[in-house]
Amino acid sequence: MSRLQRSLSDYKERLLGESSALRQAIRRGEHSAMTSGLAPGLVQGNLVILPADWAGDFLTYCQNNPVSCPLIAVSEVGNPALPGLGLDIDIRHDVPEYNIFRDGELVETPTDIASLWQDDMVAFVLGCSFSFEDALQQAGLSVRNIDMDLNVSMYRSNIPTVPGGRFHGDMVVSMRPFIASDAIRAVQVTTRLPKAHGAPVHLGDPSLIGIADLAAPDFGDAVELRGDELPVFWACGVTPQVAVGNAKPPICITHVPGKMLITDLLNAELAIL
Amino acid sequence: MSRLQRSLSDYKERLLGESSALRQAIRRGEHSAMTSGLAPGLVQGNLVILPADWAGDFLTYCQNNPVSCPLIAVSEVGNPALPGLGLDIDIRHDVPEYNIFRDGELVETPTDIASLWQDDMVAFVLGCSFSFEDALQQAGLSVRNIDMDLNVSMYRSNIPTVPGGRFHGDMVVSMRPFIASDAIRAVQVTTRLPKAHGAPVHLGDPSLIGIADLAAPDFGDAVELRGDELPVFWACGVTPQVAVGNAKPPICITHVPGKMLITDLLNAELAIL
Repeated sequence: MSRLQRSLSDYKERLLGESSALRQAIRRGEHSAMTSGLAPGLVQGNLVILPADWAGDFLTYCQNNPVSCPLIAVSEVGNPALPGLGLDIDIRHDVPEYNIFRDGELVETPTDIASLWQDDMVAFVLGCSFSFEDALQQAGLSVRNIDMDLNVSMYRSNIPTVPGGRFHGDMVVSMRPFIASDAIRAVQVTTRLPKAHGAPVHLGDPSLIGIADLAAPDFGDAVELRGDELPVFWACGVTPQVAVGNAKPPICITHVPGKMLITDLLNAELAIL
Repeated sequence: MSRLQRSLSDYKERLLGESSALRQAIRRGEHSAMTSGLAPGLVQGNLVILPADWAGDFLTYCQNNPVSCPLIAVSEVGNPALPGLGLDIDIRHDVPEYNIFRDGELVETPTDIASLWQDDMVAFVLGCSFSFEDALQQAGLSVRNIDMDLNVSMYRSNIPTVPGGRFHGDMVVSMRPFIASDAIRAVQVTTRLPKAHGAPVHLGDPSLIGIADLAAPDFGDAVELRGDELPVFWACGVTPQVAVGNAKPPICITHVPGKMLITDLLNAELAIL
């Protein structure tokens, strides 16, 4: 055991065992389902893989849209490792299911991308709302999609993002219903996590951000909105998949929404304050 | 000039000149109007004066309801000075207009209480929403009641407070309209000011907290709510006046809502973070 490992809390050491075991199971093809609720306490990430000649534009897009695209790691060109997120990560195998976009069109959803990996590819990992769902639950709030064992509801909004090179498009948002006092508490709790989309971008009337029907999400599952609740909307890491659809790179590989990369970072390590 | 004074920033020194001049004008009876917008940057306070044998109950009530009743100063028994809030303050003269309650009933609204002062009286000063209005404006948000030169809208809600001795009653709330993204920002900004009521207690549907008609506030003026706006509600320092009406002490002296004590404390000194 190294001196570095010795400095870890027992809490983190136990979680690292869980995350590594989960990634190994995913790598062996034994888990291709949602990762929501897995490895609570640890950061999960949105994935975008692009050829190197598209990477600069995408970095600019992330820089211009830090709420939708909070970048937490970038790989070396051609190297599928992401040691900053977990020493054993191989991004070609460690996500349960991948979306393959060719010229902006979704063409395939394999559980492994070893056969598609190119030596000019760069992997980007963005923070994910699962981190703040964990923080919301730890603050005593009830998160409907988790309670109902559903994927979170996601919608294409009409909130524009700032273009970055060839990447552009409207923001995808995730929605969770809360009574007003819990919505106010949720603003406080999620403000602490700017690298996991931070505070909500909207609450209340969905039509003000271009959402016609809450019961028909564009991604994920619908959840019940009760009479005394407000829908609360956060920027979502699926936003870059819309921008990829617009930019039409020859190939782009992402995670399937809800099926994330499990990392070795604590949500608490991502938090400010 | 003392060493203490030398340590003040030029900014604070200039503000102290303004606050002292304003209190002197109020003391001379030259200003009996609202204090909203006066001495921006400085804390204004809600006032409650009670006989000493009611003071313990009121302290307990404040302790039990720190969001409605954020106590920032208490006088010595019989002493009208509040040196922690301003060396020259004499609470018998320095508020523009006072409410006199006898047995819980409002009976008089004089501009000076020297003739009513008793040597067993204790003065309590509570933080006020004017501090966070200043913070909201400094954050670039538009505060409707200030823009329209109106007193803020205040309502009796059905949110119960926690009784303290003989004091009990529902919360009085103040309301300001914001579009959703500004409401979210307002939660963040006002969270920094727990001694000025802190974050909102409600937003959205007023009927959920027992308010039937936003156009008919119980105190202050009505303001316009536009189609894309949410009403955002904060706990209000008028709450103790309702508790006084229920407790019915033989005498209680408060400020008239909107006509506050101007102190020498910076809003920024009251802020956490």
